Amino acid sequence: MKRARVAYSGAIYEAIEAEGRLKLNDGRIVEEHEVVWLPPVTPRTVFALGLNYAGHAKELAFNAPTEPLVFLKGPNTFVGHRAQTRRPADVTYMHYECELAVVIGRQARNVKQENAYEYVAGYTVANDYAIRDYLENYYRPNLRVKNRDTCTPIGPWLVDAKDVPDPMNLTLRTFVNGKLTQEGSTKDMIFDIPFLIEYLSSFMTLNKGDIILTGTPEGAVDTAVGDEVVTEIEGIGRLVNTIAGDEPFLKA
Amino acid sequence: MKRARVAYSGAIYEAIEAEGRLKLNDGRIVEEHEVVWLPPVTPRTVFALGLNYAGHAKELAFNAPTEPLVFLKGPNTFVGHRAQTRRPADVTYMHYECELAVVIGRQARNVKQENAYEYVAGYTVANDYAIRDYLENYYRPNLRVKNRDTCTPIGPWLVDAKDVPDPMNLTLRTFVNGKLTQEGSTKDMIFDIPFLIEYLSSFMTLNKGDIILTGTPEGAVDTAVGDEVVTEIEGIGRLVNTIAGDEPFLKA
Repeated sequence: MKRARVAYSGAIYEAIEAEGRLKLNDGRIVEEHEVVWLPPVTPRTVFALGLNYAGHAKELAFNAPTEPLVFLKGPNTFVGHRAQTRRPADVTYMHYECELAVVIGRQARNVKQENAYEYVAGYTVANDYAIRDYLENYYRPNLRVKNRDTCTPIGPWLVDAKDVPDPMNLTLRTFVNGKLTQEGSTKDMIFDIPFLIEYLSSFMTLNKGDIILTGTPEGAVDTAVGDEVVTEIEGIGRLVNTIAGDEPFLKA
Repeated sequence: MKRARVAYSGAIYEAIEAEGRLKLNDGRIVEEHEVVWLPPVTPRTVFALGLNYAGHAKELAFNAPTEPLVFLKGPNTFVGHRAQTRRPADVTYMHYECELAVVIGRQARNVKQENAYEYVAGYTVANDYAIRDYLENYYRPNLRVKNRDTCTPIGPWLVDAKDVPDPMNLTLRTFVNGKLTQEGSTKDMIFDIPFLIEYLSSFMTLNKGDIILTGTPEGAVDTAVGDEVVTEIEGIGRLVNTIAGDEPFLKA
């Protein structure tokens, strides 16, 4: 099952995919373009991985890490499918990053790798934009790189874990204005999903709805105002995002 | 006014300080020991500062930073006044850190230092424990150092900003089992409150209820199971915490 969270006709609804349309939880069936797509899971604790694909570490001229480089992201940064993301005029490099997002389904503490998938509710797609201007070093990136408003589109769908037989073998692709610019596979993660769940749950509690953004493969390139950026993961979804300038945000 | 959030007789209440007792928002007056104290503000986006006092940077053998070292903390780590904090048996160094917590009162974007205090709702006390075993470097600490369950007591009170005429001149003190072990003043912060609000709001939106933990002065020392740790800030409050071992948590 594919699940979404959308705003429609004055309220927020859970919805499921129904032959290319959305079936709201009150029974109505609506077209995809009629709704505002929200993140399919309300962001609470969101972990993100730095340099979790060797190819991406290399293109940034960093060594691949020997343990997970994990940091947290704040709720201000998340938007849903078909949102505008702001590219501030005063930055030079804003790179997309197509990432598999793992959504935790139940409380997890001291979980072993062999049981880790029992704790996964499902998967979605994230585009974890980075403002590269401020990337200082190998370690966890600072908030100016990774925590700006609207800079983490996520969605469209939460796909149930049981419908994803092998999450460690999915193709990730990014298209900028229709042109393929990034391609990789989740099989090239340095620290795979079971490892990450064991690692995080070994020193803190993971809760239902927590999200792990598992990192991006190589191929991150700069974006410009007006670009349409599509991040797509095989079997999970196709997340559409548009880069806006400062103007729509300065009117507020 | 001093405000708290407490659980009492089956429900959660806002409360205010009333001559050493708590006045609940339904009018009842109860004793402090009759309630479970919760964080006075529900943690949403919580920023924490690394090395924001030169003395503390020096005792860790780090250079003082030239721009704020800010990281985020997840909701799992917060507990209220009089809580137990877990000290895992497999760690060697768990240091308390007495910190002034600044609570944002309204949406803040591109705020200038001279107007920054208009965006502050009030102040409380935080004890931002660090598991030093895992501190790798100068940069933002990893989650094993700063994001463990129960490792950030906060409270007891949110003190209204108007009742704190000079937040940049408050004495901070920590007592372990009644003995003074840390003493400093907020006047020794490297990046003061107006600077931090200008800095953060320059690249992201701060929202009502966001919290900034402003760092700790020198004097952080190790704690042991059974210790009572009191972190106190002049005019703000006296936050009591007890260090527990793994046992109470493993029963769950």
